[in-house]
Amino acid sequence: MQVSLEQVASFLQERDDFVILTHQYPDGDTLGTGAALCLGLQKMGKRARLLCSDPIPSKYDYFFGKIPKQEFTAKTVVSVDVADEKLLGKNLSCYAGKVELCIDHHGSNTHYAAMVYVDASAAATAEILYALLRLLDVPLDPLIANCIYTGITTDTGCFKYTNATPRTYRIAAEVMEAGAEAATINRLMFDTKSRARMELERKILDSMEFYFEGRLAMITVTQKMVAESHANEGDLEGFAALPRQVEGVLVGVTLREKDGGSFKISLRTNPDINATQICALFGGGGHPTAAGCEIHGDAETVKAKLVEAIGPYLGKTE
Amino acid sequence: MQVSLEQVASFLQERDDFVILTHQYPDGDTLGTGAALCLGLQKMGKRARLLCSDPIPSKYDYFFGKIPKQEFTAKTVVSVDVADEKLLGKNLSCYAGKVELCIDHHGSNTHYAAMVYVDASAAATAEILYALLRLLDVPLDPLIANCIYTGITTDTGCFKYTNATPRTYRIAAEVMEAGAEAATINRLMFDTKSRARMELERKILDSMEFYFEGRLAMITVTQKMVAESHANEGDLEGFAALPRQVEGVLVGVTLREKDGGSFKISLRTNPDINATQICALFGGGGHPTAAGCEIHGDAETVKAKLVEAIGPYLGKTE
Repeated sequence: MQVSLEQVASFLQERDDFVILTHQYPDGDTLGTGAALCLGLQKMGKRARLLCSDPIPSKYDYFFGKIPKQEFTAKTVVSVDVADEKLLGKNLSCYAGKVELCIDHHGSNTHYAAMVYVDASAAATAEILYALLRLLDVPLDPLIANCIYTGITTDTGCFKYTNATPRTYRIAAEVMEAGAEAATINRLMFDTKSRARMELERKILDSMEFYFEGRLAMITVTQKMVAESHANEGDLEGFAALPRQVEGVLVGVTLREKDGGSFKISLRTNPDINATQICALFGGGGHPTAAGCEIHGDAETVKAKLVEAIGPYLGKTE
Repeated sequence: MQVSLEQVASFLQERDDFVILTHQYPDGDTLGTGAALCLGLQKMGKRARLLCSDPIPSKYDYFFGKIPKQEFTAKTVVSVDVADEKLLGKNLSCYAGKVELCIDHHGSNTHYAAMVYVDASAAATAEILYALLRLLDVPLDPLIANCIYTGITTDTGCFKYTNATPRTYRIAAEVMEAGAEAATINRLMFDTKSRARMELERKILDSMEFYFEGRLAMITVTQKMVAESHANEGDLEGFAALPRQVEGVLVGVTLREKDGGSFKISLRTNPDINATQICALFGGGGHPTAAGCEIHGDAETVKAKLVEAIGPYLGKTE
């Protein structure tokens, strides 16, 4: 049942002994929101702890490491930024069917909880949490402010994406006034790379190839490149946007080698080229400007198939 | 003479036939602010045009190309975001000594104009211009909003730097409500690279070397790399921050080959290592965490000198 933010506030005021669930492969929004809620409830004199199925990356230590640990028997189960029970992950799957309140900003939320508060216009679930803490009269301190800022800046790509609204910017201003260390957080979230990531990045840039007078660009991530860079799963994120950052590129393609002799393909296109249509040729799908598919074969064969399929969409050909 | 913003407003209301001067090698703030002032004055029924010593990079076409061109004999000379007359550049040097009003946010402003309005707490001169247009009762339209957003986002590195304050974020929110296309502008300013820049970037990443167990990282930009990439002056900016983005790097060094067998050195350091002190060893200087110097010799000799000089600052040595 979708409830109002006032109902969420009343529920939290009435209950105690909270476990707050975040989604697997945690990001800054689920952790920042969860931490802000946990700290807020503790400030209200309640017991609360934060759980995640996966290990928390050390880059979040600046707030995650500062949450007071409390021992108690859980009575109230809340999830934050978790669109679907399946996303709770293996180690929290025991909570499936037991979530009483879900706070989220994903329009795709499956309404698995008894009470659901979803605001899809919020750039981050942390935006909702800011409003909730105001409603609960919980004063912001620098730690809670850092949590909220983290959720907002990570989910908007440092205010770069289309989801950031005037409200997003205003909440950022408010939490900065409450002590959020915006510049420090942004440096940590966006300008810090592991050495493995940097090594992988240079290999991937080396793999970049252009076709059709620079209107198509492709990068290839092989298993050998990943192994040689000592990269882990986290180091592999965010490359798909790279080829289309080059001026003049209308279609950017990322090939990622999988086990068993196939490649996972990610397409990013200009608004006037339909990525879904192209990926459908290979049994894939997605959004009009971001789609994917899987193609079997060695790298050169796969590239040749893609070049052949994409060419007709680029107007003139070579 | 430092004047108040009210005095600036009165001056603009009294005068007409404005030329607005921007600084050489123009950036988003000088152009965005200049364009917003020019459009604002035109909305007030006055004649105004915007000048720059250098060609305007095409990436600013979305606002620069939309300023109505007006022919008139200039009577009032105003500069925006120009800290020193020397920065007007060769083609505007004829205006030196003739600037009546200077609007700027550089604390280092040399007060070369008859009237000076400097607010060093503003993240961008565009922030000042926002306040000024409000004072003048000029309504924001989407074009002016885009100009102001551009100045703010470019001078704060997309809200990433320490100069961005709550006021900065709030002004961004206001101009977005007036129609600024924040996401589009950010994509253009921050996620678009020329092919030459991308080529140069991969060469520079290839040049990255680590010393002292990864606490020192160096990149080298040779003239050969620049020539092979077909890179221009604009493509060469912003690399100095790169080495220190790698986790664990305390000192990041950029070597840029100059004519005549020397290298321009840029140092970026963690707050507890004094970059100025290190650069002073080579006759250079700068800020505590960002300094520079010039060292003669071939790349390998220069690197060896730097490694020797920096080692003692890194605690333990290899």
